[in-house]
Amino acid sequence: MIHKEQIANFERRYRATMINSLAGIRQSFLVGSKSKLGIENVAIFSNIIHFGANPPLWGIVFRPDTIQRDTLNNILETNCYTLNYINQDDFEKAHQTSAKFESHISEFESCGFEAQYVNDFFAPFVASSPIKIGLKFAERIDISINNTIIIIGQIETIDIDSKYISEDGFVNLHQLDVLANIGLDAYCHFDLKQRLSYAKSNVWPTPI
Amino acid sequence: MIHKEQIANFERRYRATMINSLAGIRQSFLVGSKSKLGIENVAIFSNIIHFGANPPLWGIVFRPDTIQRDTLNNILETNCYTLNYINQDDFEKAHQTSAKFESHISEFESCGFEAQYVNDFFAPFVASSPIKIGLKFAERIDISINNTIIIIGQIETIDIDSKYISEDGFVNLHQLDVLANIGLDAYCHFDLKQRLSYAKSNVWPTPI
Repeated sequence: MIHKEQIANFERRYRATMINSLAGIRQSFLVGSKSKLGIENVAIFSNIIHFGANPPLWGIVFRPDTIQRDTLNNILETNCYTLNYINQDDFEKAHQTSAKFESHISEFESCGFEAQYVNDFFAPFVASSPIKIGLKFAERIDISINNTIIIIGQIETIDIDSKYISEDGFVNLHQLDVLANIGLDAYCHFDLKQRLSYAKSNVWPTPI
Repeated sequence: MIHKEQIANFERRYRATMINSLAGIRQSFLVGSKSKLGIENVAIFSNIIHFGANPPLWGIVFRPDTIQRDTLNNILETNCYTLNYINQDDFEKAHQTSAKFESHISEFESCGFEAQYVNDFFAPFVASSPIKIGLKFAERIDISINNTIIIIGQIETIDIDSKYISEDGFVNLHQLDVLANIGLDAYCHFDLKQRLSYAKSNVWPTPI
Protein backbone atom coordinates (compact mmCIF):
# COMPACT_ATOMS: atom_id res chain seq x y z
CA MET A 1 0.00 0.00 0.00
CA ILE A 2 1.38 3.37 -1.06
CA HIS A 3 0.31 6.31 1.14
CA LYS A 4 0.04 9.98 0.26
CA GLU A 5 3.14 10.87 2.27
CA GLN A 6 5.16 8.46 0.11
CA ILE A 7 3.61 9.84 -3.07
CA ALA A 8 4.59 13.36 -1.97
CA ASN A 9 8.18 12.19 -1.42
CA PHE A 10 8.61 10.34 -4.72
CA GLU A 11 11.09 11.79 -7.19
CA ARG A 12 9.18 14.24 -9.39
CA ARG A 13 9.29 12.33 -12.71
CA TYR A 14 8.68 8.97 -11.02
CA ARG A 15 5.55 10.38 -9.38
CA ALA A 16 4.32 12.01 -12.60
CA THR A 17 4.83 8.79 -14.56
CA MET A 18 3.07 6.67 -11.93
CA ILE A 19 0.02 8.88 -11.38
CA ASN A 20 -0.42 9.61 -15.08
CA SER A 21 -0.13 5.97 -16.13
CA LEU A 22 -2.48 4.89 -13.33
CA ALA A 23 -5.19 7.07 -14.89
CA GLY A 24 -5.31 4.39 -17.54
CA ILE A 25 -5.76 4.06 -21.26
CA ARG A 26 -7.07 7.02 -23.24
CA GLN A 27 -7.76 7.82 -26.87
CA SER A 28 -4.87 9.63 -28.60
CA PHE A 29 -5.71 12.68 -30.71
CA LEU A 30 -3.72 15.16 -32.74
CA VAL A 31 -5.02 18.65 -32.03
CA GLY A 32 -4.65 20.97 -35.02
CA SER A 33 -4.72 24.73 -34.64
CA LYS A 34 -3.39 27.88 -36.30
CA SER A 35 -2.34 31.25 -34.92
CA LYS A 36 -3.85 34.51 -36.16
CA LEU A 37 -0.57 35.04 -37.98
CA GLY A 38 -1.08 31.77 -39.82
CA ILE A 39 1.44 29.50 -38.08
CA GLU A 40 0.07 25.97 -38.01
CA ASN A 41 0.39 23.78 -34.94
CA VAL A 42 -0.31 20.12 -34.29
CA ALA A 43 0.22 18.38 -30.95
CA ILE A 44 -0.75 15.05 -29.40
CA PHE A 45 -3.31 15.07 -26.58
CA SER A 46 -5.13 12.31 -24.80
CA ASN A 47 -6.86 14.08 -21.93
CA ILE A 48 -10.13 14.59 -23.77
CA ILE A 49 -13.28 14.79 -21.64
CA HIS A 50 -16.76 13.97 -22.91
CA PHE A 51 -19.08 16.53 -21.30
CA GLY A 52 -22.24 15.81 -23.22
CA ALA A 53 -23.84 15.08 -26.57
CA ASN A 54 -26.55 17.76 -26.83
CA PRO A 55 -24.89 20.07 -27.59
CA PRO A 56 -21.83 17.91 -28.33
CA LEU A 57 -19.21 19.22 -25.88
CA TRP A 58 -15.72 17.90 -25.27
CA GLY A 59 -13.00 19.31 -23.05
CA ILE A 60 -9.22 19.24 -23.14
CA VAL A 61 -7.15 19.64 -19.99
CA PHE A 62 -4.10 21.89 -20.28
CA ARG A 63 -1.48 21.47 -17.59
CA PRO A 64 0.23 24.67 -16.43
CA ASP A 65 3.72 23.23 -16.93
CA THR A 66 3.30 21.70 -20.38
CA ILE A 67 4.83 22.91 -23.60
CA GLN A 68 1.46 22.77 -25.31
CA ARG A 69 0.83 26.49 -24.85
CA ASP A 70 0.84 27.17 -28.59
CA THR A 71 -2.28 25.04 -28.95
CA LEU A 72 -3.98 26.81 -26.05
CA ASN A 73 -3.04 30.27 -27.34
CA ASN A 74 -4.26 29.44 -30.84
CA ILE A 75 -7.61 28.18 -29.56
CA LEU A 76 -8.13 31.29 -27.44
CA GLU A 77 -7.05 33.57 -30.31
CA THR A 78 -9.05 31.97 -33.10
CA ASN A 79 -11.85 30.05 -31.35
CA CYS A 80 -11.36 26.92 -33.40
CA TYR A 81 -9.33 23.71 -33.48
CA THR A 82 -9.50 20.16 -34.76
CA LEU A 83 -9.25 16.71 -33.18
CA ASN A 84 -7.79 14.04 -35.43
CA TYR A 85 -7.58 10.30 -34.64
CA ILE A 86 -4.20 8.70 -35.18
CA ASN A 87 -3.35 5.69 -37.31
CA GLN A 88 -1.33 3.07 -35.39
CA ASP A 89 1.50 3.37 -37.93
CA ASP A 90 1.88 7.08 -37.19
CA PHE A 91 2.63 6.62 -33.49
CA GLU A 92 6.26 7.78 -33.64
CA LYS A 93 5.42 10.89 -35.65
CA ALA A 94 2.51 11.61 -33.31
CA HIS A 95 4.74 11.26 -30.24
CA GLN A 96 7.27 13.58 -31.82
CA THR A 97 4.66 16.39 -31.82
CA SER A 98 5.06 16.46 -28.02
CA ALA A 99 8.61 17.79 -28.36
CA LYS A 100 9.29 21.44 -27.60
CA PHE A 101 9.33 23.24 -30.93
CA GLU A 102 9.74 26.98 -31.22
CA SER A 103 6.46 28.81 -31.79
CA HIS A 104 7.28 29.81 -35.35
CA ILE A 105 7.89 26.20 -36.38
CA SER A 106 5.03 24.05 -37.71
CA GLU A 107 4.94 20.60 -36.16
CA PHE A 108 3.12 19.45 -39.29
CA GLU A 109 6.31 19.83 -41.30
CA SER A 110 8.74 18.87 -38.54
CA CYS A 111 6.90 15.66 -37.68
CA GLY A 112 5.78 14.65 -41.15
CA PHE A 113 2.03 15.27 -41.14
CA GLU A 114 0.13 16.99 -43.91
CA ALA A 115 -2.25 19.83 -42.99
CA GLN A 116 -5.63 19.77 -44.70
CA TYR A 117 -8.17 22.60 -44.92
CA VAL A 118 -11.87 21.90 -45.30
CA ASN A 119 -14.29 24.55 -46.51
CA ASP A 120 -13.75 27.77 -44.56
CA PHE A 121 -12.72 26.13 -41.27
CA PHE A 122 -9.72 28.16 -40.04
CA ALA A 123 -7.88 25.38 -38.17
CA PRO A 124 -5.99 22.67 -40.06
CA PHE A 125 -7.00 19.01 -40.02
CA VAL A 126 -4.49 16.15 -40.25
CA ALA A 127 -4.89 14.79 -43.78
CA SER A 128 -4.04 11.16 -42.94
CA SER A 129 -6.44 10.90 -39.98
CA PRO A 130 -9.31 8.44 -40.40
CA ILE A 131 -11.71 10.61 -38.34
CA LYS A 132 -11.43 14.39 -38.22
CA ILE A 133 -13.48 16.58 -35.91
CA GLY A 134 -13.76 20.37 -36.10
CA LEU A 135 -14.59 22.24 -32.89
CA LYS A 136 -15.41 25.77 -31.85
CA PHE A 137 -14.30 27.13 -28.48
CA ALA A 138 -17.19 27.22 -26.01
CA GLU A 139 -15.91 27.81 -22.46
CA ARG A 140 -12.72 28.08 -20.43
CA ILE A 141 -12.60 26.67 -16.90
CA ASP A 142 -9.69 27.59 -14.64
CA ILE A 143 -9.03 24.98 -11.96
CA SER A 144 -7.65 26.95 -9.02
CA ILE A 145 -6.41 23.94 -7.07
CA ASN A 146 -3.46 23.34 -9.42
CA ASN A 147 -3.77 25.95 -12.17
CA THR A 148 -4.88 23.54 -14.87
CA ILE A 149 -7.21 24.84 -17.56
CA ILE A 150 -10.08 23.04 -19.24
CA ILE A 151 -11.03 24.25 -22.70
CA ILE A 152 -14.52 23.11 -23.64
CA GLY A 153 -15.37 23.05 -27.31
CA GLN A 154 -18.49 22.27 -29.31
CA ILE A 155 -18.27 19.80 -32.18
CA GLU A 156 -19.05 21.51 -35.50
CA THR A 157 -18.15 18.82 -38.02
CA ILE A 158 -17.34 15.10 -38.00
CA ASP A 159 -15.56 13.66 -41.02
CA ILE A 160 -15.86 9.86 -40.86
CA ASP A 161 -16.61 7.08 -43.33
CA SER A 162 -20.21 6.12 -42.50
CA LYS A 163 -19.39 2.41 -42.79
CA TYR A 164 -17.79 2.61 -39.33
CA ILE A 165 -21.01 3.88 -37.71
CA SER A 166 -23.42 1.22 -36.44
CA GLU A 167 -27.16 1.51 -36.86
CA ASP A 168 -27.53 2.84 -33.31
CA GLY A 169 -24.84 5.52 -33.72
CA PHE A 170 -21.95 3.58 -32.17
CA VAL A 171 -18.61 4.37 -33.82
CA ASN A 172 -16.54 1.22 -34.31
CA LEU A 173 -13.16 2.73 -33.49
CA HIS A 174 -11.61 -0.71 -33.05
CA GLN A 175 -12.21 -1.39 -36.77
CA LEU A 176 -10.18 1.70 -37.63
CA ASP A 177 -7.13 0.53 -35.65
CA VAL A 178 -6.54 3.96 -34.13
CA LEU A 179 -3.98 4.76 -31.49
CA ALA A 180 -4.55 4.98 -27.74
CA ASN A 181 -2.04 5.69 -25.00
CA ILE A 182 -1.26 5.34 -21.32
CA GLY A 183 0.60 8.16 -19.59
CA LEU A 184 2.85 10.31 -21.73
CA ASP A 185 4.85 7.75 -23.66
CA ALA A 186 3.10 4.36 -23.81
CA TYR A 187 1.15 3.64 -26.99
CA CYS A 188 -1.53 0.98 -27.17
CA HIS A 189 -3.68 -1.17 -29.41
CA PHE A 190 -7.23 -1.94 -28.35
CA ASP A 191 -9.95 -4.25 -29.46
CA LEU A 192 -13.66 -4.63 -28.78
CA LYS A 193 -14.53 -7.40 -26.36
CA GLN A 194 -18.32 -7.04 -26.22
CA ARG A 195 -21.12 -4.52 -26.26
CA LEU A 196 -23.78 -5.13 -23.62
CA SER A 197 -27.48 -4.29 -23.48
CA TYR A 198 -28.71 -1.32 -21.42
CA ALA A 199 -28.44 -2.29 -17.76
CA LYS A 200 -31.66 -2.84 -15.80
CA SER A 201 -31.68 -3.72 -12.13
CA ASN A 202 -33.83 -6.84 -12.56
CA VAL A 203 -32.24 -8.31 -15.73
CA TRP A 204 -28.68 -9.43 -16.35
CA PRO A 205 -27.07 -7.67 -19.39
CA THR A 206 -26.84 -9.56 -22.67
CA PRO A 207 -24.46 -9.17 -25.64
CA ILE A 208 -25.56 -6.81 -28.44
CA MET B 1 -19.10 15.00 -43.43
CA ILE B 2 -21.58 15.40 -40.58
CA HIS B 3 -22.43 19.01 -39.69
CA LYS B 4 -23.64 20.44 -36.40
CA GLU B 5 -27.17 20.96 -37.72
CA GLN B 6 -27.38 17.22 -38.49
CA ILE B 7 -25.98 16.36 -35.06
CA ALA B 8 -28.63 18.56 -33.45
CA ASN B 9 -31.34 16.75 -35.41
CA PHE B 10 -30.20 13.19 -34.68
CA GLU B 11 -32.49 11.05 -32.54
CA ARG B 12 -31.44 11.61 -28.91
CA ARG B 13 -30.00 8.16 -28.14
CA TYR B 14 -28.32 7.87 -31.55
CA ARG B 15 -26.57 11.20 -30.94
CA ALA B 16 -25.54 10.28 -27.38
CA THR B 17 -24.14 6.94 -28.53
CA MET B 18 -22.22 8.52 -31.42
CA ILE B 19 -20.67 11.44 -29.54
CA ASN B 20 -19.83 9.34 -26.48
CA SER B 21 -18.23 6.53 -28.51
CA LEU B 22 -16.30 9.04 -30.62
CA ALA B 23 -14.59 10.28 -27.45
CA GLY B 24 -12.74 7.00 -27.60
CA ILE B 25 -11.41 4.33 -25.31
CA ARG B 26 -11.17 5.05 -21.59
CA GLN B 27 -10.16 3.14 -18.50
CA SER B 28 -13.11 1.55 -16.65
CA PHE B 29 -13.30 2.00 -12.89
CA LEU B 30 -15.70 0.96 -10.19
CA VAL B 31 -16.29 3.88 -7.84
CA GLY B 32 -16.98 2.76 -4.27
CA SER B 33 -18.71 5.07 -1.79
CA LYS B 34 -20.89 4.92 1.30
CA SER B 35 -23.62 7.21 2.61
CA LYS B 36 -23.49 8.72 6.10
CA LEU B 37 -26.19 6.21 7.00
CA GLY B 38 -23.90 3.39 5.94
CA ILE B 39 -25.45 2.33 2.63
CA GLU B 40 -22.69 1.14 0.31
CA ASN B 41 -22.65 2.05 -3.36
CA VAL B 42 -20.55 0.91 -6.28
CA ALA B 43 -20.93 2.18 -9.86
CA ILE B 44 -18.95 1.98 -13.07
CA PHE B 45 -17.33 5.18 -14.37
CA SER B 46 -14.88 5.82 -17.17
CA ASN B 47 -14.78 9.60 -17.40
CA ILE B 48 -11.75 10.00 -15.13
CA ILE B 49 -9.56 13.06 -15.70
CA HIS B 50 -5.91 13.26 -14.75
CA PHE B 51 -5.36 16.81 -13.45
CA GLY B 52 -1.88 16.46 -12.02
CA ALA B 53 0.54 14.37 -10.01
CA ASN B 54 1.76 16.79 -7.34
CA PRO B 55 -0.57 16.72 -5.52
CA PRO B 56 -2.11 13.67 -7.24
CA LEU B 57 -5.49 14.96 -8.44
CA TRP B 58 -8.07 13.16 -10.56
CA GLY B 59 -11.52 14.28 -11.56
CA ILE B 60 -14.77 12.50 -12.36
CA VAL B 61 -17.41 14.06 -14.57
CA PHE B 62 -21.00 13.68 -13.39
CA ARG B 63 -23.65 14.23 -16.02
CA PRO B 64 -26.82 16.00 -14.84
CA ASP B 65 -29.10 13.31 -16.27
CA THR B 66 -27.34 10.19 -15.03
CA ILE B 67 -28.56 7.85 -12.37
CA GLN B 68 -25.19 8.02 -10.62
CA ARG B 69 -26.38 10.60 -8.12
CA ASP B 70 -25.90 8.24 -5.17
CA THR B 71 -22.16 8.25 -5.82
CA LEU B 72 -22.10 12.05 -6.09
CA ASN B 73 -24.19 12.52 -2.94
CA ASN B 74 -22.01 10.08 -0.98
CA ILE B 75 -18.80 11.84 -2.01
CA LEU B 76 -20.21 15.26 -1.06
CA GLU B 77 -21.55 13.87 2.25
CA THR B 78 -18.50 11.92 3.35
CA ASN B 79 -15.58 13.44 1.40
CA CYS B 80 -14.18 10.07 0.38
CA TYR B 81 -14.48 7.42 -2.31
CA THR B 82 -12.49 4.70 -4.01
CA LEU B 83 -11.50 3.90 -7.60
CA ASN B 84 -11.11 0.24 -8.37
CA TYR B 85 -9.77 -1.26 -11.63
CA ILE B 86 -11.89 -3.99 -13.14
CA ASN B 87 -10.84 -7.51 -14.10
CA GLN B 88 -11.84 -8.39 -17.69
CA ASP B 89 -13.87 -11.32 -16.39
CA ASP B 90 -16.02 -9.01 -14.29
CA PHE B 91 -17.26 -6.90 -17.20
CA GLU B 92 -20.89 -8.04 -17.04
CA LYS B 93 -21.11 -7.49 -13.29
CA ALA B 94 -19.41 -4.10 -13.69
CA HIS B 95 -21.85 -3.07 -16.44
CA GLN B 96 -24.75 -4.13 -14.25
CA THR B 97 -23.74 -1.48 -11.66
CA SER B 98 -24.92 1.12 -14.20
CA ALA B 99 -28.52 -0.01 -13.75
CA LYS B 100 -30.90 2.15 -11.75
CA PHE B 101 -31.04 0.66 -8.26
CA GLU B 102 -33.00 2.25 -5.46
CA SER B 103 -30.84 4.27 -3.08
CA HIS B 104 -31.25 1.85 -0.17
CA ILE B 105 -29.93 -1.06 -2.24
CA SER B 106 -26.21 -1.88 -2.32
CA GLU B 107 -24.91 -2.53 -5.84
CA PHE B 108 -22.16 -4.59 -4.21
CA GLU B 109 -24.68 -7.26 -3.30
CA SER B 110 -26.95 -6.87 -6.31
CA CYS B 111 -24.10 -7.12 -8.82
CA GLY B 112 -21.92 -9.66 -7.06
CA PHE B 113 -18.97 -7.65 -5.80
CA GLU B 114 -17.50 -7.89 -2.33
CA ALA B 115 -16.88 -4.68 -0.37
CA GLN B 116 -13.56 -4.44 1.43
CA TYR B 117 -12.58 -1.97 4.15
CA VAL B 118 -8.96 -0.95 4.67
CA ASN B 119 -7.78 0.65 7.91
CA ASP B 120 -10.11 3.50 8.84
CA PHE B 121 -10.98 4.56 5.27
CA PHE B 122 -14.74 5.18 5.27
CA ALA B 123 -15.49 4.25 1.66
CA PRO B 124 -15.52 0.61 0.54
CA PHE B 125 -13.03 -0.83 -1.92
CA VAL B 126 -13.88 -3.63 -4.36
CA ALA B 127 -12.18 -6.72 -2.94
CA SER B 128 -11.48 -8.39 -6.30
CA SER B 129 -9.90 -5.32 -7.93
CA PRO B 130 -6.21 -5.63 -8.84
CA ILE B 131 -5.54 -1.93 -8.11
CA LYS B 132 -7.48 0.03 -5.49
CA ILE B 133 -7.19 3.76 -5.00
CA GLY B 134 -8.58 5.74 -2.08
CA LEU B 135 -9.39 9.42 -2.66
CA LYS B 136 -10.47 12.41 -0.60
CA PHE B 137 -12.76 15.06 -2.08
CA ALA B 138 -10.80 18.19 -3.03
CA GLU B 139 -12.92 20.50 -5.21
CA ARG B 140 -16.24 20.69 -7.02
CA ILE B 141 -16.47 22.44 -10.38
CA ASP B 142 -19.89 23.27 -11.81
CA ILE B 143 -19.86 23.53 -15.59
CA SER B 144 -22.56 26.08 -16.37
CA ILE B 145 -22.71 25.37 -20.10
CA ASN B 146 -24.51 22.02 -19.62
CA ASN B 147 -24.82 21.53 -15.86
CA THR B 148 -22.20 18.80 -15.61
CA ILE B 149 -20.20 18.60 -12.39
CA ILE B 150 -16.54 17.71 -12.00
CA ILE B 151 -15.52 16.26 -8.66
CA ILE B 152 -11.79 16.54 -8.12
CA GLY B 153 -10.24 14.22 -5.56
CA GLN B 154 -6.76 13.77 -4.14
CA ILE B 155 -5.25 10.30 -4.11
CA GLU B 156 -4.63 9.14 -0.52
CA THR B 157 -3.68 5.50 -0.99
CA ILE B 158 -2.73 3.19 -3.88
CA ASP B 159 -2.99 -0.55 -3.32
CA ILE B 160 -1.07 -2.30 -6.10
CA ASP B 161 1.34 -5.21 -6.34
CA SER B 162 4.72 -3.51 -6.81
CA LYS B 163 5.73 -6.03 -9.48
CA TYR B 164 3.54 -4.14 -11.94
CA ILE B 165 5.41 -0.86 -11.40
CA SER B 166 8.44 -0.28 -13.66
CA GLU B 167 11.65 1.26 -12.36
CA ASP B 168 10.62 4.69 -13.66
CA GLY B 169 7.17 4.59 -12.02
CA PHE B 170 5.19 3.41 -15.05
CA VAL B 171 2.28 1.14 -14.12
CA ASN B 172 2.00 -1.80 -16.52
CA LEU B 173 -1.79 -1.91 -16.68
CA HIS B 174 -1.68 -4.13 -19.78
CA GLN B 175 -0.08 -6.90 -17.71
CA LEU B 176 -3.05 -6.79 -15.34
CA ASP B 177 -5.60 -7.33 -18.12
CA VAL B 178 -7.96 -4.69 -16.76
CA LEU B 179 -11.10 -3.49 -18.47
CA ALA B 180 -11.50 -0.42 -20.65
CA ASN B 181 -14.57 0.81 -22.47
CA ILE B 182 -15.88 2.96 -25.31
CA GLY B 183 -19.12 4.85 -24.78
CA LEU B 184 -21.57 3.44 -22.30
CA ASP B 185 -21.77 -0.21 -23.32
CA ALA B 186 -18.70 -1.33 -25.30
CA TYR B 187 -16.02 -3.14 -23.31
CA CYS B 188 -12.46 -3.47 -24.56
CA HIS B 189 -9.15 -5.25 -24.20
CA PHE B 190 -5.96 -3.31 -24.69
CA ASP B 191 -2.30 -4.11 -25.05
CA LEU B 192 0.92 -2.15 -24.99
CA LYS B 193 2.41 -1.48 -28.40
CA GLN B 194 5.52 0.50 -27.43
CA ARG B 195 6.83 3.06 -24.98
CA LEU B 196 8.86 5.83 -26.58
CA SER B 197 11.67 8.02 -25.29
CA TYR B 198 10.98 11.63 -24.23
CA ALA B 199 10.40 13.65 -27.40
CA LYS B 200 13.02 16.22 -28.38
CA SER B 201 12.68 18.44 -31.43
CA ASN B 202 16.04 17.44 -32.93
CA VAL B 203 15.97 13.67 -32.25
CA TRP B 204 13.50 11.02 -33.41
CA PRO B 205 11.97 9.04 -30.48
CA THR B 206 13.30 5.55 -29.75
CA PRO B 207 11.69 2.58 -28.03
CA ILE B 208 12.18 2.27 -24.27
